[in-house]
Amino acid sequence: MSNPDRRQAALDYHAKPRPGKLGIAITKPFTTPSELALAYSPGVAEPVIEIEKNPDDAFKYTSKGNLVAVITNGTAVLGLGRTGALASKPVMEGKAVLFKKFANVDVFDIEVDAPDADDFIETVKRIAPTFGGINLEDIAAPDCFYVEQALSDALDIPVFHDDQHGTAIIICAGLLNALSYQGKTLEQARIVCVGAGAAGIASMNLLQALGADANNIIMCDSKGVVHSGRTDLNAQKQAFAVDTDLRTLEDAMSGADVFIGVSGPGLVSQAMVQSMAPKPVVFALANPTPEILPEEAHAVRDDLIMATGRSDYPNQVNNVLCFPFLFRGALDVRSRSINHAMQIAAVHAIADLARQPVPEVVKDAYDAPELSFGPEYILPTPLDPRLSDFVSPAVAAAAVDSGAARSEYPAHYPKR
Amino acid sequence: MSNPDRRQAALDYHAKPRPGKLGIAITKPFTTPSELALAYSPGVAEPVIEIEKNPDDAFKYTSKGNLVAVITNGTAVLGLGRTGALASKPVMEGKAVLFKKFANVDVFDIEVDAPDADDFIETVKRIAPTFGGINLEDIAAPDCFYVEQALSDALDIPVFHDDQHGTAIIICAGLLNALSYQGKTLEQARIVCVGAGAAGIASMNLLQALGADANNIIMCDSKGVVHSGRTDLNAQKQAFAVDTDLRTLEDAMSGADVFIGVSGPGLVSQAMVQSMAPKPVVFALANPTPEILPEEAHAVRDDLIMATGRSDYPNQVNNVLCFPFLFRGALDVRSRSINHAMQIAAVHAIADLARQPVPEVVKDAYDAPELSFGPEYILPTPLDPRLSDFVSPAVAAAAVDSGAARSEYPAHYPKR
Repeated sequence: MSNPDRRQAALDYHAKPRPGKLGIAITKPFTTPSELALAYSPGVAEPVIEIEKNPDDAFKYTSKGNLVAVITNGTAVLGLGRTGALASKPVMEGKAVLFKKFANVDVFDIEVDAPDADDFIETVKRIAPTFGGINLEDIAAPDCFYVEQALSDALDIPVFHDDQHGTAIIICAGLLNALSYQGKTLEQARIVCVGAGAAGIASMNLLQALGADANNIIMCDSKGVVHSGRTDLNAQKQAFAVDTDLRTLEDAMSGADVFIGVSGPGLVSQAMVQSMAPKPVVFALANPTPEILPEEAHAVRDDLIMATGRSDYPNQVNNVLCFPFLFRGALDVRSRSINHAMQIAAVHAIADLARQPVPEVVKDAYDAPELSFGPEYILPTPLDPRLSDFVSPAVAAAAVDSGAARSEYPAHYPKR
Repeated sequence: MSNPDRRQAALDYHAKPRPGKLGIAITKPFTTPSELALAYSPGVAEPVIEIEKNPDDAFKYTSKGNLVAVITNGTAVLGLGRTGALASKPVMEGKAVLFKKFANVDVFDIEVDAPDADDFIETVKRIAPTFGGINLEDIAAPDCFYVEQALSDALDIPVFHDDQHGTAIIICAGLLNALSYQGKTLEQARIVCVGAGAAGIASMNLLQALGADANNIIMCDSKGVVHSGRTDLNAQKQAFAVDTDLRTLEDAMSGADVFIGVSGPGLVSQAMVQSMAPKPVVFALANPTPEILPEEAHAVRDDLIMATGRSDYPNQVNNVLCFPFLFRGALDVRSRSINHAMQIAAVHAIADLARQPVPEVVKDAYDAPELSFGPEYILPTPLDPRLSDFVSPAVAAAAVDSGAARSEYPAHYPKR
């Protein structure tokens, strides 16, 4: 399809036959007068009385325990920037649909007209009783760090900023597999990250939790290398400031084992890729146009493993591999949070899955009979039905072991 | 069923096989990789761009135009009082289910932890971009008057406090029919209302808009008649303070044509009913125990028309006759509000419907082959499939005529 055709197809998809992508489903029998009397007045008074006595009973008698809010203030929507709350609604509805489709998690998308971080935090805190979890979405950095921390501290349900940690989890899973294939270790790899926003900061933090050496990580922002001589750094960037003579992305790339791009189109040249260490890994994740196109990178290096954010190239770094199953696992043990241990469990589960033989159903879905672990398949694909079996139990187990869970490892999950 | 059995049945209904009564449904094809690319990245960027340029396009590309928030702060839940936000969730989910079942309106129930009216108003304003309408629910009087007014003034979508106006609409529809059957006029009827909260105040206001004489209305609260000598009245009650020697409910009832009770159990004695004018109308709407039971009232008057809030007596005053269809009509013309003209249109539509012959499907649903307009059938029943044909077009037409509508009277509606 041409670009205008693709544009019209997307608009038609959203508009016809009825606007939007989601609606409400009634999950209980609700036809006869006696069913109405159970679901609403007078029967409904009984669960109200129980929940007033014991707040945890909200998980027993309402949809709360399977209900996540996908919430934004519209300050950093897709690659489009500050579109505002209303215009972000198609994205949030899309996220809701992904949650439902992949992990049967029910989602209300909530678009909040509160560009100010404190206003936004206050609003989310007030509506939180409605939900069993909060998925923050498309909130500009650096506010997103503060917002997530404040809400995690205030609430007793999982709060997860997917643009940070969802992206970080997939990047880490893919990188573990790529380095392993290249015969390198995370501990020794020299890593360059371009883009010191939500995804970049969270990814580098999670890589360190997995064993990467802080001294081997060079962070770059729009002004070049984040080094200790700079005076323009926010707290998150400051944590990555290193004492170095490197100043430009070009400087940093020379001899690097890993490039992680979560920035903008075309920032990486073929010469930069040529300057990397043998057997490099390049994750060029800017969307829709990566920091360097795979065909350009492969043209100058045949020992390269490459990933992008796009579905039309191999190795797509796609958050949908994680967030539905991560929340499924967290909700199924009524977790109070999504902590580091649960995120690390998700990284290993996703990485493990990519190293398993690929079932026919997945090969068929992508019309890719040759799919198997290797340079062009370091991550599972979004339509892999095994994701829920791998990720959700691993996350639930980590929640139980780390003390975040309110209930036991579910009986209907695979035995630990 | 015994009371304990009924209680357990209500709890089981809410808990099994899964907690709660509602979930999310995906309304578009969403299986193949190309459908995913339309619903989410990259296709989803197209409607975002359109809505950013033209905010009204949110009605075209998202679920907003069919989506109502049922919102509470849990300060006056059912007859249970201030249960708090969380414990109110079963009621709000029940309301959502009623909206969906009867009028295919999608609802997110939102429980807001903000007992303070201004905090609550601020929260609702911020999340309002999400929705095409706001149904306020179970907010204590007198805050509810202030909250509704502030939100109506601030927002360009319908804001409707069902406990006020939904109840008022049904009371007025029933009363028009009851008075007509008794051969009386609203203009001349002497009316006593007990309960000066949300429902009482709104009902008396709407009755006046329909033609009742303010001088013929006596309002009573827990301290007796609301008269001009009292110094303890809030603004809403003050508007009904009359210059009178009447002091007690007993005083007021003597010679009255109409009694409207939206107060508490057992406040009305048989002697009070006996003291009313010939052919009186008694709406004893306290739930679950009315101000006087129908069998007690009928025992002392055989010229009485009686209504209650209960489904196990004739003439149930039930808001579900109105709110789903009222919002359906408002949403279908993208109305900016639910104004007085629309409410009055709903009153007449509901009253008219009760005067039509009752179809077999309704008689069968209630196992009541004899149903026809008369003392025991002054209001339609909730399972009457004609409600949407009567109420929604009337409301939509009133929205168009009064200038509240953003779009035209829908082509798929019956011709005006």
